Amino acid sequence: MPLEHQRSEDVVEYTVQPIGLIHSCYSEKFGIPRQPGLVKSARGAIELLPPCNREEMFKGLETFSHIWLQFLFHESMADGWRPTVRPPWLGGQERVGLFASRSPHRPNFLGLSVVRHLGMRKEGGKLFVDIGELDLLHGTPIVDIKPYVPYSDRVEDAAQGFVRFSEKKISVRFSAEADASCRRYQEVTGRDLKTLIHEVLEQDPRPASQRKQEREYGMLLWKVNVRWLADESGFKVLSLEEKE
Amino acid sequence: MPLEHQRSEDVVEYTVQPIGLIHSCYSEKFGIPRQPGLVKSARGAIELLPPCNREEMFKGLETFSHIWLQFLFHESMADGWRPTVRPPWLGGQERVGLFASRSPHRPNFLGLSVVRHLGMRKEGGKLFVDIGELDLLHGTPIVDIKPYVPYSDRVEDAAQGFVRFSEKKISVRFSAEADASCRRYQEVTGRDLKTLIHEVLEQDPRPASQRKQEREYGMLLWKVNVRWLADESGFKVLSLEEKE
Repeated sequence: MPLEHQRSEDVVEYTVQPIGLIHSCYSEKFGIPRQPGLVKSARGAIELLPPCNREEMFKGLETFSHIWLQFLFHESMADGWRPTVRPPWLGGQERVGLFASRSPHRPNFLGLSVVRHLGMRKEGGKLFVDIGELDLLHGTPIVDIKPYVPYSDRVEDAAQGFVRFSEKKISVRFSAEADASCRRYQEVTGRDLKTLIHEVLEQDPRPASQRKQEREYGMLLWKVNVRWLADESGFKVLSLEEKE
Repeated sequence: MPLEHQRSEDVVEYTVQPIGLIHSCYSEKFGIPRQPGLVKSARGAIELLPPCNREEMFKGLETFSHIWLQFLFHESMADGWRPTVRPPWLGGQERVGLFASRSPHRPNFLGLSVVRHLGMRKEGGKLFVDIGELDLLHGTPIVDIKPYVPYSDRVEDAAQGFVRFSEKKISVRFSAEADASCRRYQEVTGRDLKTLIHEVLEQDPRPASQRKQEREYGMLLWKVNVRWLADESGFKVLSLEEKE
Protein backbone atom coordinates (compact mmCIF):
# COMPACT_ATOMS: atom_id res chain seq x y z
CA MET A 1 0.00 0.00 0.00
CA PRO A 2 1.67 3.26 -1.06
CA LEU A 3 1.85 6.15 1.35
CA GLU A 4 0.03 8.86 -0.46
CA HIS A 5 0.04 11.71 1.99
CA GLN A 6 3.70 11.56 2.97
CA ARG A 7 6.39 10.50 0.55
CA SER A 8 9.37 8.73 2.09
CA GLU A 9 11.71 10.65 -0.21
CA ASP A 10 10.94 13.90 1.60
CA VAL A 11 13.02 14.79 4.60
CA VAL A 12 10.55 16.04 7.14
CA GLU A 13 11.64 17.56 10.43
CA TYR A 14 9.67 18.25 13.55
CA THR A 15 10.60 20.47 16.46
CA VAL A 16 10.23 19.44 20.09
CA GLN A 17 10.56 21.71 23.10
CA PRO A 18 11.23 20.53 26.65
CA ILE A 19 8.13 20.70 28.85
CA GLY A 20 10.30 20.19 31.92
CA LEU A 21 13.80 19.57 33.24
CA ILE A 22 14.93 16.77 35.53
CA HIS A 23 16.34 17.42 38.98
CA SER A 24 18.08 14.21 39.97
CA CYS A 25 20.33 12.65 42.58
CA TYR A 26 22.40 11.55 39.56
CA SER A 27 24.61 14.55 38.86
CA GLU A 28 26.74 12.71 36.30
CA LYS A 29 26.30 9.73 34.01
CA PHE A 30 28.56 7.36 35.94
CA GLY A 31 26.49 5.62 38.61
CA ILE A 32 23.10 5.87 36.90
CA PRO A 33 21.43 2.44 36.97
CA ARG A 34 20.92 0.83 33.58
CA GLN A 35 17.15 0.74 33.95
CA PRO A 36 14.63 2.56 36.14
CA GLY A 37 13.16 0.72 39.13
CA LEU A 38 16.48 -0.80 40.22
CA VAL A 39 17.49 1.85 42.77
CA LYS A 40 14.44 2.27 45.00
CA SER A 41 15.82 5.23 46.96
CA ALA A 42 16.72 7.31 43.89
CA ARG A 43 14.86 10.61 44.05
CA GLY A 44 14.27 13.45 41.69
CA ALA A 45 11.71 15.86 40.33
CA ILE A 46 10.50 17.28 37.06
CA GLU A 47 10.61 21.08 37.06
CA LEU A 48 7.81 22.07 34.71
CA LEU A 49 8.49 24.81 32.19
CA PRO A 50 6.00 27.29 30.70
CA PRO A 51 3.47 26.76 29.16
CA CYS A 52 3.28 23.35 30.90
CA ASN A 53 3.64 24.61 34.48
CA ARG A 54 -0.09 24.85 35.12
CA GLU A 55 -1.55 22.58 37.81
CA GLU A 56 -4.75 21.85 35.89
CA MET A 57 -2.67 20.05 33.24
CA PHE A 58 -1.96 17.32 35.83
CA LYS A 59 -5.43 16.88 37.35
CA GLY A 60 -6.04 13.16 37.81
CA LEU A 61 -2.37 12.20 37.61
CA GLU A 62 -2.42 11.68 41.39
CA THR A 63 -4.38 8.45 40.83
CA PHE A 64 -1.46 6.85 38.97
CA SER A 65 1.47 5.31 40.86
CA HIS A 66 3.78 5.34 37.86
CA ILE A 67 4.38 7.63 34.91
CA TRP A 68 6.18 7.43 31.59
CA LEU A 69 8.76 10.04 30.79
CA GLN A 70 9.78 10.64 27.22
CA PHE A 71 13.04 12.55 27.33
CA LEU A 72 16.14 13.52 25.40
CA PHE A 73 19.54 11.95 26.01
CA HIS A 74 21.00 15.45 25.81
CA GLU A 75 24.49 14.49 26.99
CA SER A 76 24.78 11.76 24.35
CA MET A 77 24.03 14.01 21.39
CA ALA A 78 27.57 15.29 20.90
CA ASP A 79 28.87 11.75 20.40
CA GLY A 80 26.24 10.80 17.81
CA TRP A 81 25.19 7.20 17.24
CA ARG A 82 26.38 4.02 15.53
CA PRO A 83 24.27 1.30 13.80
CA THR A 84 25.26 -1.37 16.35
CA VAL A 85 25.98 -1.26 20.09
CA ARG A 86 27.24 -3.56 22.86
CA PRO A 87 24.50 -3.49 25.50
CA PRO A 88 25.27 -4.17 29.20
CA TRP A 89 22.54 -6.86 29.00
CA LEU A 90 25.06 -9.00 27.13
CA GLY A 91 28.01 -8.15 29.36
CA GLY A 92 29.22 -5.46 26.96
CA GLN A 93 30.73 -8.11 24.67
CA GLU A 94 28.32 -8.85 21.86
CA ARG A 95 27.08 -6.38 19.25
CA VAL A 96 23.40 -5.98 18.49
CA GLY A 97 21.47 -3.50 16.40
CA LEU A 98 20.88 -0.10 17.91
CA PHE A 99 17.08 -0.55 17.71
CA ALA A 100 17.34 -3.85 19.61
CA SER A 101 18.86 -1.86 22.50
CA ARG A 102 17.91 0.98 24.83
CA SER A 103 21.23 2.75 24.18
CA PRO A 104 21.20 6.54 24.65
CA HIS A 105 23.17 6.90 21.41
CA ARG A 106 20.31 6.65 18.90
CA PRO A 107 18.70 8.71 16.14
CA ASN A 108 16.61 11.49 17.69
CA PHE A 109 18.20 10.69 21.11
CA LEU A 110 14.77 9.92 22.55
CA GLY A 111 14.60 8.11 25.87
CA LEU A 112 11.75 6.32 27.63
CA SER A 113 11.55 5.55 31.35
CA VAL A 114 8.81 4.54 33.72
CA VAL A 115 9.30 6.14 37.14
CA ARG A 116 7.40 6.17 40.41
CA HIS A 117 5.07 9.15 40.76
CA LEU A 118 5.36 10.81 44.18
CA GLY A 119 3.09 13.83 43.74
CA MET A 120 3.06 17.50 42.76
CA ARG A 121 4.80 20.26 44.67
CA LYS A 122 4.99 24.05 44.38
CA GLU A 123 8.21 25.71 45.48
CA GLY A 124 9.61 29.16 44.79
CA GLY A 125 6.86 29.89 42.28
CA LYS A 126 7.69 26.74 40.34
CA LEU A 127 5.71 23.56 39.84
CA PHE A 128 7.37 20.16 40.28
CA VAL A 129 6.40 16.51 39.86
CA ASP A 130 8.33 14.48 42.44
CA ILE A 131 9.53 11.11 41.18
CA GLY A 132 11.35 8.07 42.49
CA GLU A 133 13.26 5.03 41.16
CA LEU A 134 14.49 7.12 38.25
CA ASP A 135 17.49 6.49 36.01
CA LEU A 136 17.84 10.03 34.68
CA LEU A 137 20.67 12.50 34.67
CA HIS A 138 20.26 15.90 36.32
CA GLY A 139 19.24 18.43 33.68
CA THR A 140 17.61 15.94 31.33
CA PRO A 141 15.00 17.65 29.10
CA ILE A 142 11.56 16.02 29.39
CA VAL A 143 9.45 16.14 26.24
CA ASP A 144 6.36 14.27 27.48
CA ILE A 145 4.72 12.85 30.60
CA LYS A 146 2.03 10.16 30.37
CA PRO A 147 0.30 7.95 32.93
CA TYR A 148 1.49 4.32 33.09
CA VAL A 149 -1.68 2.39 32.24
CA PRO A 150 -1.27 -1.28 33.27
CA TYR A 151 -4.17 -2.30 31.04
CA SER A 152 -2.11 -1.61 27.92
CA ASP A 153 1.49 -1.04 29.12
CA ARG A 154 1.91 -4.19 31.19
CA VAL A 155 2.19 -6.83 28.47
CA GLU A 156 1.80 -10.15 30.24
CA ASP A 157 3.04 -12.36 27.40
CA ALA A 158 6.03 -10.26 26.30
CA ALA A 159 9.27 -12.16 25.72
CA GLN A 160 12.38 -11.12 27.65
CA GLY A 161 14.41 -11.19 24.39
CA PHE A 162 18.15 -11.55 24.73
CA VAL A 163 18.13 -9.49 27.93
CA ARG A 164 19.85 -11.26 30.82
CA PHE A 165 19.72 -9.23 34.00
CA SER A 166 22.11 -10.34 36.69
CA GLU A 167 20.36 -10.62 40.04
CA LYS A 168 23.78 -10.87 41.67
CA LYS A 169 24.51 -7.85 43.82
CA ILE A 170 27.92 -6.56 44.84
CA SER A 171 28.73 -6.50 48.55
CA VAL A 172 29.04 -2.88 49.75
CA ARG A 173 30.80 -1.76 52.95
CA PHE A 174 31.38 1.73 54.37
CA SER A 175 34.47 3.09 56.12
CA ALA A 176 33.83 4.71 59.51
CA GLU A 177 34.57 8.08 57.91
CA ALA A 178 32.12 7.54 55.04
CA ASP A 179 29.47 6.33 57.46
CA ALA A 180 29.85 9.46 59.61
CA SER A 181 29.69 11.68 56.52
CA CYS A 182 26.43 10.04 55.42
CA ARG A 183 24.93 10.68 58.87
CA ARG A 184 25.94 14.34 58.84
CA TYR A 185 24.58 14.78 55.30
CA GLN A 186 21.24 13.27 56.29
CA GLU A 187 20.96 15.55 59.33
CA VAL A 188 21.41 18.64 57.16
CA THR A 189 19.50 17.64 54.00
CA GLY A 190 17.11 14.91 55.15
CA ARG A 191 18.40 12.69 52.35
CA ASP A 192 19.28 9.07 53.10
CA LEU A 193 22.51 9.16 51.15
CA LYS A 194 23.85 5.92 52.64
CA THR A 195 20.97 3.84 51.27
CA LEU A 196 21.29 5.57 47.92
CA ILE A 197 25.04 4.85 47.69
CA HIS A 198 24.40 1.26 48.77
CA GLU A 199 21.69 0.66 46.17
CA VAL A 200 23.65 2.34 43.38
CA LEU A 201 26.86 0.44 44.08
CA GLU A 202 25.31 -3.01 44.53
CA GLN A 203 24.13 -2.73 40.87
CA ASP A 204 27.80 -2.44 39.86
CA PRO A 205 28.06 0.76 37.80
CA ARG A 206 31.49 -0.17 36.38
CA PRO A 207 31.85 -0.72 32.64
CA ALA A 208 31.99 -4.45 31.90
CA SER A 209 35.59 -4.05 30.67
CA GLN A 210 36.82 -2.88 34.10
CA ARG A 211 35.20 -5.51 36.28
CA LYS A 212 38.35 -7.48 37.00
CA GLN A 213 40.59 -4.63 38.09
CA GLU A 214 41.24 -3.48 41.65
CA ARG A 215 40.99 0.29 41.66
CA GLU A 216 39.34 3.38 43.13
CA TYR A 217 36.31 5.08 41.63
CA GLY A 218 34.46 8.33 42.18
CA MET A 219 30.89 9.31 41.40
CA LEU A 220 28.78 12.37 42.05
CA LEU A 221 25.44 11.87 43.84
CA TRP A 222 23.59 15.12 44.49
CA LYS A 223 26.59 17.37 45.14
CA VAL A 224 28.63 14.78 46.97
CA ASN A 225 31.70 13.17 45.43
CA VAL A 226 31.68 9.55 46.61
CA ARG A 227 35.01 7.65 46.52
CA TRP A 228 35.07 3.86 46.72
CA LEU A 229 37.49 0.99 46.29
CA ALA A 230 36.73 -2.10 44.21
CA ASP A 231 38.57 -5.21 45.30
CA GLU A 232 38.04 -8.96 45.33
CA SER A 233 35.55 -8.91 48.21
CA GLY A 234 33.33 -6.18 46.75
CA PHE A 235 33.17 -2.41 47.13
CA LYS A 236 34.26 -0.33 50.10
CA VAL A 237 33.04 3.28 50.30
CA LEU A 238 36.04 5.30 51.46
CA SER A 239 35.03 8.94 51.69
CA LEU A 240 32.48 11.59 50.80
CA GLU A 241 33.31 15.12 49.79
CA GLU A 242 30.72 17.82 49.28
CA LYS A 243 31.27 19.99 46.25
CA GLU A 244 30.40 23.68 46.29
CA MET B 1 19.21 22.24 43.74
CA PRO B 2 19.61 24.72 40.90
CA LEU B 3 20.08 23.50 37.38
CA GLU B 4 23.42 24.93 36.42
CA HIS B 5 23.99 23.59 32.96
CA GLN B 6 20.59 24.41 31.53
CA ARG B 7 18.59 27.43 32.59
CA SER B 8 14.85 27.00 32.56
CA GLU B 9 14.46 30.55 31.23
CA ASP B 10 16.03 29.57 27.91
CA VAL B 11 13.78 28.23 25.22
CA VAL B 12 15.65 25.29 23.80
CA GLU B 13 14.43 23.42 20.74
CA TYR B 14 15.42 20.06 19.39
CA THR B 15 14.79 18.63 15.96
CA VAL B 16 13.49 15.12 15.38
CA GLN B 17 13.33 13.33 12.05
CA PRO B 18 11.15 10.31 11.28
CA ILE B 19 13.13 7.07 11.14
CA GLY B 20 10.15 5.34 9.56
CA LEU B 21 6.55 5.67 8.44
CA ILE B 22 3.61 3.49 9.46
CA HIS B 23 1.67 1.39 6.98
CA SER B 24 -1.55 0.50 8.71
CA CYS B 25 -4.94 -1.10 8.23
CA TYR B 26 -6.25 2.12 9.83
CA SER B 27 -6.51 4.53 6.92
CA GLU B 28 -8.33 7.18 8.93
CA LYS B 29 -8.64 8.12 12.60
CA PHE B 30 -12.20 6.88 13.07
CA GLY B 31 -12.10 3.20 14.01
CA ILE B 32 -8.63 3.17 15.58
CA PRO B 33 -8.82 1.40 18.95
CA ARG B 34 -8.11 3.60 21.95
CA GLN B 35 -5.10 1.54 23.03
CA PRO B 36 -2.86 -0.97 21.29
CA GLY B 37 -3.38 -4.67 21.99
CA LEU B 38 -7.18 -4.48 21.79
CA VAL B 39 -7.61 -5.47 18.14
CA LYS B 40 -5.56 -8.63 17.75
CA SER B 41 -5.97 -8.88 13.97
CA ALA B 42 -4.80 -5.30 13.28
CA ARG B 43 -1.79 -5.41 10.97
CA GLY B 44 0.74 -2.92 9.79
CA ALA B 45 4.41 -2.31 9.13
CA ILE B 46 7.07 0.30 9.72
CA GLU B 47 8.71 1.37 6.47
CA LEU B 48 12.23 2.35 7.52
CA LEU B 49 13.70 5.51 6.09
CA PRO B 50 17.38 6.30 5.41
CA PRO B 51 19.69 6.29 7.30
CA CYS B 52 17.76 3.80 9.49
CA ASN B 53 16.92 1.30 6.75
CA ARG B 54 19.96 -0.90 7.42
CA GLU B 55 19.31 -4.47 8.59
CA GLU B 56 22.23 -4.49 11.05
CA MET B 57 20.48 -1.79 13.10
CA PHE B 58 17.83 -4.40 14.04
CA LYS B 59 20.05 -7.40 14.80
CA GLY B 60 18.72 -9.08 17.95
CA LEU B 61 15.28 -7.47 17.73
CA GLU B 62 13.92 -10.82 16.52
CA THR B 63 14.23 -12.12 20.12
CA PHE B 64 11.63 -9.62 21.38
CA SER B 65 7.92 -10.31 20.97
CA HIS B 66 6.91 -6.68 21.53
CA ILE B 67 8.38 -3.30 20.68
CA TRP B 68 7.81 0.28 21.77
CA LEU B 69 7.10 2.84 19.11
CA GLN B 70 7.64 6.51 19.85
CA PHE B 71 5.77 8.41 17.18
CA LEU B 72 4.21 11.73 16.25
CA PHE B 73 0.47 12.36 16.26
CA HIS B 74 0.94 14.14 12.95
CA GLU B 75 -2.77 14.50 12.17
CA SER B 76 -3.46 16.14 15.53
CA MET B 77 -0.89 18.91 15.16
CA ALA B 78 -3.10 21.28 13.20
CA ASP B 79 -5.66 21.35 16.02
CA GLY B 80 -3.12 22.10 18.75
CA TRP B 81 -3.73 21.11 22.38
CA ARG B 82 -5.68 22.25 25.44
CA PRO B 83 -4.64 22.01 29.14
CA THR B 84 -7.46 19.60 29.99
CA VAL B 85 -9.16 16.80 28.04
CA ARG B 86 -12.11 14.41 28.39
CA PRO B 87 -10.61 10.94 28.04
CA PRO B 88 -12.68 7.98 26.76
CA TRP B 89 -11.59 6.17 29.94
CA LEU B 90 -14.11 8.33 31.80
CA GLY B 91 -16.85 8.02 29.20
CA GLY B 92 -15.88 11.34 27.62
CA GLN B 93 -17.68 13.26 30.38
CA GLU B 94 -15.13 14.34 32.97
CA ARG B 95 -12.18 16.65 32.40
CA VAL B 96 -8.68 15.69 33.53
CA GLY B 97 -5.29 17.24 32.93
CA LEU B 98 -3.68 16.62 29.58
CA PHE B 99 -0.68 14.90 31.22
CA ALA B 100 -3.00 12.53 33.10
CA SER B 101 -4.23 11.32 29.69
CA ARG B 102 -2.85 9.68 26.57
CA SER B 103 -4.61 12.23 24.35
CA PRO B 104 -2.98 12.83 20.94
CA HIS B 105 -3.47 16.58 21.43
CA ARG B 106 -0.42 17.32 23.61
CA PRO B 107 2.71 19.47 23.57
CA ASN B 108 5.26 17.95 21.17
CA PHE B 109 2.52 15.56 19.88
CA LEU B 110 4.57 12.56 20.95
CA GLY B 111 2.87 9.17 21.11
CA LEU B 112 3.89 5.91 22.71
CA SER B 113 2.56 2.46 21.81
CA VAL B 114 3.63 -1.09 22.47
CA VAL B 115 2.92 -3.32 19.47
CA ARG B 116 3.51 -6.95 18.60
CA HIS B 117 6.70 -7.52 16.64
CA LEU B 118 6.17 -9.83 13.66
CA GLY B 119 9.61 -9.68 12.00
CA MET B 120 11.61 -7.88 9.33
CA ARG B 121 10.84 -7.96 5.63
CA LYS B 122 12.50 -6.60 2.47
CA GLU B 123 10.27 -5.60 -0.39
CA GLY B 124 10.90 -3.47 -3.44
CA GLY B 125 14.29 -2.39 -2.11
CA LYS B 126 12.72 -1.21 1.15
CA LEU B 127 13.10 -2.58 4.67
CA PHE B 128 10.00 -3.10 6.83
CA VAL B 129 9.27 -4.18 10.40
CA ASP B 130 5.94 -6.02 10.40
CA ILE B 131 3.77 -5.29 13.44
CA GLY B 132 0.46 -6.39 14.89
CA GLU B 133 -2.14 -5.20 17.44
CA LEU B 134 -1.30 -1.62 16.58
CA ASP B 135 -3.39 1.51 17.17
CA LEU B 136 -1.65 3.74 14.64
CA LEU B 137 -2.87 5.71 11.68
CA HIS B 138 -1.49 5.03 8.21
CA GLY B 139 1.36 7.47 7.54
CA THR B 140 2.29 8.06 11.18
CA PRO B 141 5.94 9.20 11.48
CA ILE B 142 7.96 6.93 13.79
CA VAL B 143 10.75 8.65 15.71
CA ASP B 144 12.08 5.69 17.70
CA ILE B 145 11.82 1.91 18.06
CA LYS B 146 12.90 0.13 21.26
CA PRO B 147 12.54 -3.42 22.53
CA TYR B 148 9.83 -3.97 25.18
CA VAL B 149 11.83 -5.24 28.16
CA PRO B 150 9.49 -6.91 30.69
CA TYR B 151 12.11 -6.62 33.43
CA SER B 152 11.69 -2.85 33.56
CA ASP B 153 8.59 -2.07 31.45
CA ARG B 154 6.14 -4.48 33.08
CA VAL B 155 5.53 -2.72 36.40
CA GLU B 156 3.79 -5.31 38.56
CA ASP B 157 2.59 -2.94 41.29
CA ALA B 158 1.42 -0.06 39.07
CA ALA B 159 -1.97 1.41 39.95
CA GLN B 160 -4.69 1.48 37.28
CA GLY B 161 -5.38 5.16 38.13
CA PHE B 162 -8.78 6.50 37.14
CA VAL B 163 -8.81 4.34 34.01
CA ARG B 164 -11.93 2.20 33.71
CA PHE B 165 -11.89 0.01 30.66
CA SER B 166 -15.19 -1.45 29.67
CA GLU B 167 -14.92 -5.18 28.99
CA LYS B 168 -18.36 -5.03 27.46
CA LYS B 169 -18.26 -5.70 23.76
CA ILE B 170 -20.81 -4.67 21.17
CA SER B 171 -22.61 -7.42 19.26
CA VAL B 172 -21.57 -7.31 15.57
CA ARG B 173 -23.51 -8.91 12.70
CA PHE B 174 -22.82 -8.92 8.95
CA SER B 175 -25.33 -8.61 6.10
CA ALA B 176 -25.10 -11.34 3.44
CA GLU B 177 -23.68 -8.73 1.07
CA ALA B 178 -20.98 -7.58 3.52
CA ASP B 179 -20.09 -11.17 4.31
CA ALA B 180 -19.62 -11.98 0.61
CA SER B 181 -17.51 -8.84 0.10
CA CYS B 182 -15.20 -9.86 2.98
CA ARG B 183 -14.73 -13.28 1.41
CA ARG B 184 -13.91 -11.81 -2.01
CA TYR B 185 -11.46 -9.34 -0.42
CA GLN B 186 -9.68 -12.11 1.43
CA GLU B 187 -9.36 -14.20 -1.73
CA VAL B 188 -7.63 -11.33 -3.54
CA THR B 189 -5.50 -9.82 -0.74
CA GLY B 190 -5.12 -12.62 1.81
CA ARG B 191 -6.36 -10.23 4.52
CA ASP B 192 -8.99 -11.44 6.97
CA LEU B 193 -11.03 -8.27 6.77
CA LYS B 194 -14.09 -9.79 8.45
CA THR B 195 -12.23 -10.52 11.69
CA LEU B 196 -10.67 -7.05 11.60
CA ILE B 197 -14.05 -5.34 11.15
CA HIS B 198 -15.50 -7.51 13.92
CA GLU B 199 -12.72 -6.71 16.39
CA VAL B 200 -12.71 -2.99 15.58
CA LEU B 201 -16.48 -2.63 15.89
CA GLU B 202 -16.91 -4.65 19.10
CA GLN B 203 -14.66 -2.02 20.81
CA ASP B 204 -17.29 0.61 19.87
CA PRO B 205 -15.41 3.32 17.98
CA ARG B 206 -18.26 5.85 18.33
CA PRO B 207 -17.64 9.04 20.31
CA ALA B 208 -19.26 8.75 23.76
CA SER B 209 -21.70 11.53 22.84
CA GLN B 210 -23.23 9.50 19.97
CA ARG B 211 -23.76 6.20 21.75
CA LYS B 212 -27.50 6.51 22.14
CA GLN B 213 -28.40 7.38 18.57
CA GLU B 214 -29.53 4.98 15.87
CA ARG B 215 -27.60 5.87 12.74
CA GLU B 216 -25.25 4.71 10.00
CA TYR B 217 -21.48 5.03 10.13
CA GLY B 218 -18.61 4.58 7.72
CA MET B 219 -14.92 3.87 8.32
CA LEU B 220 -11.96 3.17 6.10
CA LEU B 221 -9.96 -0.01 6.76
CA TRP B 222 -7.13 -0.54 4.30
CA LYS B 223 -8.82 0.89 1.20
CA VAL B 224 -12.27 -0.43 1.98
CA ASN B 225 -15.07 1.85 3.06
CA VAL B 226 -17.11 -0.12 5.62
CA ARG B 227 -20.72 0.97 6.25
CA TRP B 228 -22.57 -0.19 9.34
CA LEU B 229 -25.78 0.51 11.22
CA ALA B 230 -25.92 1.11 14.95
CA ASP B 231 -29.22 0.22 16.57
CA GLU B 232 -30.52 -1.08 19.89
CA SER B 233 -29.30 -4.63 19.37
CA GLY B 234 -25.73 -3.69 18.37
CA PHE B 235 -24.00 -3.09 15.04
CA LYS B 236 -24.86 -4.53 11.66
CA VAL B 237 -22.25 -4.29 8.90
CA LEU B 238 -24.19 -3.36 5.77
CA SER B 239 -21.74 -3.04 2.89
CA LEU B 240 -18.11 -2.75 1.82
CA GLU B 241 -16.88 -0.56 -0.99
CA GLU B 242 -13.31 -0.59 -2.25
CA LYS B 243 -11.86 2.81 -2.93
CA GLU B 244 -9.48 3.38 -5.83
